[in-house]
Amino acid sequence: MPAAAEKPPLRIGLIGTGYMGKAHVFGYATAQRVLDLPLTPVLHTVADVTEELAAGAADTLGFSQWTLDWRTMIDDPEIDVIHVTTPNALHKEMSLAAIAAGKHVHCEKPLATSVADARAMTEAAEAAGVGTQVGFNYLCNPMMALAREMIAAGELGEVRGYRGLHCEDYMTDTEAPPNFRHEPAGGGALADIGSHALATAEYLLGPIAEVMGHCVTMIAERPDGEGGRRMMEVDDVGRAFVLFENGATGSIEGNWISTGRKMQHDFEVYGSRGALAFSQERFSELHFYSVDDAPARRGFRRIEAAPDHPPYGRFCPGAGHQLGFNDLKAIEIAGFADALAGKGPEPFNFRGGLRVQALVETIQQSSRERRWLPVVA
Amino acid sequence: MPAAAEKPPLRIGLIGTGYMGKAHVFGYATAQRVLDLPLTPVLHTVADVTEELAAGAADTLGFSQWTLDWRTMIDDPEIDVIHVTTPNALHKEMSLAAIAAGKHVHCEKPLATSVADARAMTEAAEAAGVGTQVGFNYLCNPMMALAREMIAAGELGEVRGYRGLHCEDYMTDTEAPPNFRHEPAGGGALADIGSHALATAEYLLGPIAEVMGHCVTMIAERPDGEGGRRMMEVDDVGRAFVLFENGATGSIEGNWISTGRKMQHDFEVYGSRGALAFSQERFSELHFYSVDDAPARRGFRRIEAAPDHPPYGRFCPGAGHQLGFNDLKAIEIAGFADALAGKGPEPFNFRGGLRVQALVETIQQSSRERRWLPVVA
Amino acid sequence: MPAAAEKPPLRIGLIGTGYMGKAHVFGYATAQRVLDLPLTPVLHTVADVTEELAAGAADTLGFSQWTLDWRTMIDDPEIDVIHVTTPNALHKEMSLAAIAAGKHVHCEKPLATSVADARAMTEAAEAAGVGTQVGFNYLCNPMMALAREMIAAGELGEVRGYRGLHCEDYMTDTEAPPNFRHEPAGGGALADIGSHALATAEYLLGPIAEVMGHCVTMIAERPDGEGGRRMMEVDDVGRAFVLFENGATGSIEGNWISTGRKMQHDFEVYGSRGALAFSQERFSELHFYSVDDAPARRGFRRIEAAPDHPPYGRFCPGAGHQLGFNDLKAIEIAGFADALAGKGPEPFNFRGGLRVQALVETIQQSSRERRWLPVVA
Amino acid sequence: MPAAAEKPPLRIGLIGTGYMGKAHVFGYATAQRVLDLPLTPVLHTVADVTEELAAGAADTLGFSQWTLDWRTMIDDPEIDVIHVTTPNALHKEMSLAAIAAGKHVHCEKPLATSVADARAMTEAAEAAGVGTQVGFNYLCNPMMALAREMIAAGELGEVRGYRGLHCEDYMTDTEAPPNFRHEPAGGGALADIGSHALATAEYLLGPIAEVMGHCVTMIAERPDGEGGRRMMEVDDVGRAFVLFENGATGSIEGNWISTGRKMQHDFEVYGSRGALAFSQERFSELHFYSVDDAPARRGFRRIEAAPDHPPYGRFCPGAGHQLGFNDLKAIEIAGFADALAGKGPEPFNFRGGLRVQALVETIQQSSRERRWLPVVA
Repeated sequence: MPAAAEKPPLRIGLIGTGYMGKAHVFGYATAQRVLDLPLTPVLHTVADVTEELAAGAADTLGFSQWTLDWRTMIDDPEIDVIHVTTPNALHKEMSLAAIAAGKHVHCEKPLATSVADARAMTEAAEAAGVGTQVGFNYLCNPMMALAREMIAAGELGEVRGYRGLHCEDYMTDTEAPPNFRHEPAGGGALADIGSHALATAEYLLGPIAEVMGHCVTMIAERPDGEGGRRMMEVDDVGRAFVLFENGATGSIEGNWISTGRKMQHDFEVYGSRGALAFSQERFSELHFYSVDDAPARRGFRRIEAAPDHPPYGRFCPGAGHQLGFNDLKAIEIAGFADALAGKGPEPFNFRGGLRVQALVETIQQSSRERRWLPVVA
Repeated sequence: MPAAAEKPPLRIGLIGTGYMGKAHVFGYATAQRVLDLPLTPVLHTVADVTEELAAGAADTLGFSQWTLDWRTMIDDPEIDVIHVTTPNALHKEMSLAAIAAGKHVHCEKPLATSVADARAMTEAAEAAGVGTQVGFNYLCNPMMALAREMIAAGELGEVRGYRGLHCEDYMTDTEAPPNFRHEPAGGGALADIGSHALATAEYLLGPIAEVMGHCVTMIAERPDGEGGRRMMEVDDVGRAFVLFENGATGSIEGNWISTGRKMQHDFEVYGSRGALAFSQERFSELHFYSVDDAPARRGFRRIEAAPDHPPYGRFCPGAGHQLGFNDLKAIEIAGFADALAGKGPEPFNFRGGLRVQALVETIQQSSRERRWLPVVA
Repeated sequence: MPAAAEKPPLRIGLIGTGYMGKAHVFGYATAQRVLDLPLTPVLHTVADVTEELAAGAADTLGFSQWTLDWRTMIDDPEIDVIHVTTPNALHKEMSLAAIAAGKHVHCEKPLATSVADARAMTEAAEAAGVGTQVGFNYLCNPMMALAREMIAAGELGEVRGYRGLHCEDYMTDTEAPPNFRHEPAGGGALADIGSHALATAEYLLGPIAEVMGHCVTMIAERPDGEGGRRMMEVDDVGRAFVLFENGATGSIEGNWISTGRKMQHDFEVYGSRGALAFSQERFSELHFYSVDDAPARRGFRRIEAAPDHPPYGRFCPGAGHQLGFNDLKAIEIAGFADALAGKGPEPFNFRGGLRVQALVETIQQSSRERRWLPVVA
Repeated sequence: MPAAAEKPPLRIGLIGTGYMGKAHVFGYATAQRVLDLPLTPVLHTVADVTEELAAGAADTLGFSQWTLDWRTMIDDPEIDVIHVTTPNALHKEMSLAAIAAGKHVHCEKPLATSVADARAMTEAAEAAGVGTQVGFNYLCNPMMALAREMIAAGELGEVRGYRGLHCEDYMTDTEAPPNFRHEPAGGGALADIGSHALATAEYLLGPIAEVMGHCVTMIAERPDGEGGRRMMEVDDVGRAFVLFENGATGSIEGNWISTGRKMQHDFEVYGSRGALAFSQERFSELHFYSVDDAPARRGFRRIEAAPDHPPYGRFCPGAGHQLGFNDLKAIEIAGFADALAGKGPEPFNFRGGLRVQALVETIQQSSRERRWLPVVA
């Protein structure tokens, strides 16, 4: 017999077909089957700068249409949501155009290359009443949600100390040509990946009130792509001391020259009665220490992701089978779809992206001025 | 502009809507987007035993049709491939019917509840010339492929020793009601999960020639579901010594009462010049020791899954991001689709499933007879 | 002011100055200072086969006297205890002579090269009423004691399954010349190091009732030291299935060709309510899983050695500082000294050594006869 | 036959019988037997403030004499070296007196409670020409020496980034009474244990040129021992950004309220061609990543301490057996004895202790003044 009627469609326009563009599509594919979306995603149109990219992506990813003109796509009344996965400098223009056309917008992180831009985008979206999302996918891990829940429930007691990292090695090679991530506006390790560490810190412990930054360019020059060298202005390492509003203190590091590290998005939280340790290198595990355990039996406990940790059980009924990175993207996208359908609160949105941008810029400014600064956002 | 023409369809009929049925659909969803299938999967019809299950699954999973009559579905000329994800005792009848109807068949493991049945199914499929697959998804891990490649390339030298496990704890609770896995025919820990350890052992080291088994029922009785108790005949633990044809020796354990273990599908391989250690608990890592390293610098090296280990790069361009369990299912299904489209060799098929069944039964018989037995398959 | 009077002396005669001889002296040095011995160890005489060895050891290790004639030393009335750390084949003659002279005897493991010899030594010692010890130092780890205590106290519930290993790689090299460990009488990996795995298994779970062995010579020939080759008769790998008297079942492996493994003396114990996992590679940790933890908070807990785990606190008042291998030897020796002074029960003694020898031989015989055998001891 | 003549004596006077006093004696006991000292340690006299403590320690530890008057002991011409293991505030007076009496001095860390005092002590010792040592025992780990050697040999390429920690939890409990470590002069987590992290950082990478500190009192008041509360002035957490003279940058944290951490003296070093990661929690391991490994075979390699890493082989001829914390103390003391006998360079001495004190105070001052400061020492 025929299956029940389809759910309302969510017609998608995607700008950008690089890894993140693909990851959004993978996310929808998984979310639709695994997470029981309230809307049916429809891959409507994909835009990129060459026919090869755009038509190729339409074919491979399954979009019905492709275009070289993202503005036309944004104006297409048959499209409900625009996904912006282009280089950072383009986020603002594209997002504002989409908002002006009344579309919902999912924009990859960082939301913009400056706080001013991020604020303009956030205010435009809020004024227009469209739904927004910024892609901080690490936050979509069930173990991250568990950590937040445990902290909020007081399982660690009073939270006192924090260390957060996001370190990788993709800029270790001094001969690798620079890209948009090396542009002074919006570039650098702190903005690119330190931003994840900041988002996680506030996700877990709440707002950061003050920062002292230390942003360093370790590789002074890189190839300019034309046989010469180019001086680098952006940081390879961005460190910060942070004071949380709740009284806890901590440190943050974003670093893209950490040879050997592929995904060191790690944190440790210490409270008066317990502690948590997490590494994205093994992101299906959360390590928990509690002084409530019997004295001679205490130790960090390796909790493995399980159906007890929603929405893990939607993916798999058995504990310990492990989600993958793309599954986190699916959870992210499902949260957005739920919000668009009025089934849930908006997850990490433009205002969240603005907040992270403010943290990044305040740390950068603090580093330049060599003094502590309050975070205003 | 409209995207290129679709690829030829692969019209799917699914029998069974439990976890494994869902996992197949999740696998197709991911495979289609991520792995560039040569065929376009079409979720045609799903069958189960109640309208609630069948219609619900059609709705949730996205099948166009549902039915309570799997035989009719098998005869539908619009369907190309049948997925059998029902309890083990039904695999034979359904698969044989599908083969008789000229369909390709993907059957969940174990292929059958006896070697005789598995052989009949294998021979029928081979005579009919249809494509087959049995779901040994752990083998689809890029790190498993890496291990096999390293062993074959001689990176460990002459392979001498092996330990393989598949231990979980889902039958630890003595009050949990028994299910089809406790039926004397085809049941027990060795058949249910020890079979995975056996498949992995042969995948890595080649055929096992002789076995000595030790199958033990540790929980003598379980609830019968009607307020009474029922004596258990199947093993809770199945162990074996194994002699490989290549001269290596080793041991295997399948165990479903390993309290605390969720996914201990582990192996260690020792050769004359190196060793590998792997745990499914962290299945994106392979640990490698080589005597070719400088003496004071030797150690087990934690290799993280990366684009260097295909098809990881199709999922993600960055190392260390990690695949999930459902991604392994997608790789499994993509291998099948490739084979059906003539783009690759058939992966783990009915003959492979027969082989595993023969290993399981020989170990069980060896245990009963308390003596070494050759493996005949 | 002068310190209090010395405790009564324990005058030591040591036969053999290799690593184990040294380790005994290191053990006394540490035990005397750290563990508050009831007796004052006096390094009286050391014996070895050349003046260079014996006089050198006296000098380096601090013995007052040295000799080439161990028989004379054994007869010296000024000596209280004889330590036998010579090759295995000499243990019997030396121990029996020492017992006949009324000395206490600490003999390195294995106690003897046959059960018959071990029995003769045990019965002689018991008849003479002298104190004895056999050096199973892994058992002296506070974390091993903790594991035993937890099992005995029921923290794991009913114990069901066990896996024990002792794997190293010191015989991996096929060109390494054979030594006394390759002699048919008493040699092989099972006797040399598998014996440790057996001792640990019984220490934790109690007596083993039945075994099925699988002892394999993987390296058929080795250099004979004279430019030729010599066929090997002893096992490189010794495996066993074991049935414990308490109803649990398990497996054991001793293996000296495990490339990359330096100290894989590991065990895992699974009970109805919890589990333990231990590796000698990180012997200051014990990993504990308990179903008594809250469902979404369960996981293997890494308990670090601490003053809560006696006698750790004698070495160090702070948790997590770690004992070393030689500290285990100190604990072993302190247990012996306590027993000799009547301050405690005799720790692992000749009868324990006989028991392990019986396990080893029964497994070897079982392997030869390819059948299960009861353990008689 | 009698053993060879004894080596010249090193007659020891110990002040303080707490854990560190004991650890020095344990260290001598082990060093004498294991490390072939050029001098024979003689436990001459021990001093403490009560007869119970002093006479008890003489008895337990094996000193010939005890006294309540440390000044008399220092003047005893029969004593060669004074070990100062008293609370920090007493280090200066005792060390200066010992130096004035022409004794060699081993003083526990921190050397003093101020840079001025440390400088006075250092200059007095250098003027008197006596040997000195400060107890930074973590540096005595063979794996620490290996790390330093690898960095110096360029195995990591150009060193760029560093993270160093020393975090424990012994001050987590807000109801624990304060002790001398809470005194404003010389107290706090940074001075107490952060100093270890600083010593390790400079041991590995060379001098730190500039620091930015962040020292925080998280527990504002603690019991005063008389039923009331007392405001705390010292830091519970001391963090710093650090610039090394070699161009690398990094961060340091000392923290004594890290619930669950017993010995988190950890570091990570990142260079252009490799990286190292180390944790004192598993201090017999060093993890090494090298881009010289084949691309698909790279990973952090767990190097286990072995005879390849001197002086490990003096303790044990087999790799992976593990040293203990007290063994590190033995290595420390052997280095001192070698220097006193003219057989080796002076290890971590008063000038080193002064250097660490300068780092601590500069970080504290930087934190108070909220600005970067150069390190002058």
